[in-house]
Amino acid sequence: MTREQLFEHIQKKRSFLCVGLDTDVKKIPSHLLKNEDPVFAFNKAIIDATAPYCVAYKPNLAFYESTGVKGWIALEKTVRYLHEHYPDQFIIADAKRGDIGNTSAMYARTFFEELDIDAVTVAPYMGEDSVTPFLGYDGKWVILLALTSNKGSQDFQRLQTADGMPFFEHVLRKSQEWEKAAAPDGKAGGALMYVVGATQGQAFEEIRRIVPDHFLLVPGIGAQGGSLEEVCRYGITAQCGLIVNSSRAIIYADHTEDFARVAGEKAREVQQQMAAELKKALII
Amino acid sequence: MTREQLFEHIQKKRSFLCVGLDTDVKKIPSHLLKNEDPVFAFNKAIIDATAPYCVAYKPNLAFYESTGVKGWIALEKTVRYLHEHYPDQFIIADAKRGDIGNTSAMYARTFFEELDIDAVTVAPYMGEDSVTPFLGYDGKWVILLALTSNKGSQDFQRLQTADGMPFFEHVLRKSQEWEKAAAPDGKAGGALMYVVGATQGQAFEEIRRIVPDHFLLVPGIGAQGGSLEEVCRYGITAQCGLIVNSSRAIIYADHTEDFARVAGEKAREVQQQMAAELKKALII
Repeated sequence: MTREQLFEHIQKKRSFLCVGLDTDVKKIPSHLLKNEDPVFAFNKAIIDATAPYCVAYKPNLAFYESTGVKGWIALEKTVRYLHEHYPDQFIIADAKRGDIGNTSAMYARTFFEELDIDAVTVAPYMGEDSVTPFLGYDGKWVILLALTSNKGSQDFQRLQTADGMPFFEHVLRKSQEWEKAAAPDGKAGGALMYVVGATQGQAFEEIRRIVPDHFLLVPGIGAQGGSLEEVCRYGITAQCGLIVNSSRAIIYADHTEDFARVAGEKAREVQQQMAAELKKALII
Repeated sequence: MTREQLFEHIQKKRSFLCVGLDTDVKKIPSHLLKNEDPVFAFNKAIIDATAPYCVAYKPNLAFYESTGVKGWIALEKTVRYLHEHYPDQFIIADAKRGDIGNTSAMYARTFFEELDIDAVTVAPYMGEDSVTPFLGYDGKWVILLALTSNKGSQDFQRLQTADGMPFFEHVLRKSQEWEKAAAPDGKAGGALMYVVGATQGQAFEEIRRIVPDHFLLVPGIGAQGGSLEEVCRYGITAQCGLIVNSSRAIIYADHTEDFARVAGEKAREVQQQMAAELKKALII
């Protein structure tokens, strides 16, 4: 999906919500356990109920890998279901991969070719050759960890380097160079996004000085306590520039047979707040 | 596997070689493709041929994930084969995982409980709560990326921070505190190892000042060009403290029907060099 297609989708849906499919077989309603594939049954119901209100889905790979082969089958079925029934949805593999060049190339092949997913989250610690193999795919996206939503983001990401910049700023600056080098038009912003946690508050202002136009994937509203309003105050751009994720607060809002309807309602509530923010920013 | 068991294994085998199972269906000898599961058939033959000369195996998850469900089946079969036939071998999932706490806990469950693997490689960028969920398992190991073997290791890992330390030194220092906090005896060295690339040369001297006793997993000899002798000069400790990995130079040494025998020979050559280093260090 190109940047333009994504922006059109956001305008049409009046939403920049991503629903996180952190599907844990231990947390889904018990009546689903009689299904042959309870994880897929849950995902399908959640997707059908929330699709009108979101622009993206983000399966968290850890949750699928935790049940081995069964989990991979559920993941593949979920991705196929999205492709067949909701081809306009942006699919993000939340995988946080990153390895030496030949290995990153294998991961890229998995997510972009085998699964035909739109984007994959990547960890920057190993540097250029761990990231660039993901950049060579037309219409596919790397979402690089910059400033994450968790407490541990304080440990290394905000370390001051000798030139006075926090470490995450180096990640933002260097990776833009790699993106430009890999882009057919030499421009940044069409293949790379960044993860910036909603819990980081005013850091969005700082980040927007460095990456004024890039899309940011923002986890951490809902269960982790971040505020949508604050994220938008500093983070929203003329083309929205935000995909805000919510996982647990939507998919586990209810544990009865009514879970999908309640998840849909929760997604709709977030969508309405997002529509208000999009209006405020004169985007819709 | 405890540290003592690993050391005994090293002494008995006169080796600290890890064979990397970077098994790519496109690179294995073509006569294997008629097997129902060519990747497992390749791994099984490689393991049988190399097991006398090594102490560890390291499947690289990217290579298994790249073929989806089939790949996971091959991975599970490989791990089971090792457990059943070579229970003294140390198994490392080269996965480079790391995420917010609840997600890292899921990955830990996958590798340590579901697959019963001994160790998993973890990326440090997300800080404490991304690493500690892997530390709470008796006899299991986190192998944290410190200074990797690839060119991109220059981009961030060696950045100087405001206090004059390179970034990887912060990773080494902070993570030891987490390890101590999680250890029943409050000591470091029994649950945490570090990835330090063989291509990093004299950096081993620097690293040994910070982690004098920790085991280091050392990729990068062979295809990536690192030298075993140089790694040992600065890196070897009284309890060896090194697991040196070789993947491509062993498993793809030959592409004929004779591939396994040749891989065994290559592994034996490395083992003999290692025995010489162990003698030099008065370990055997």
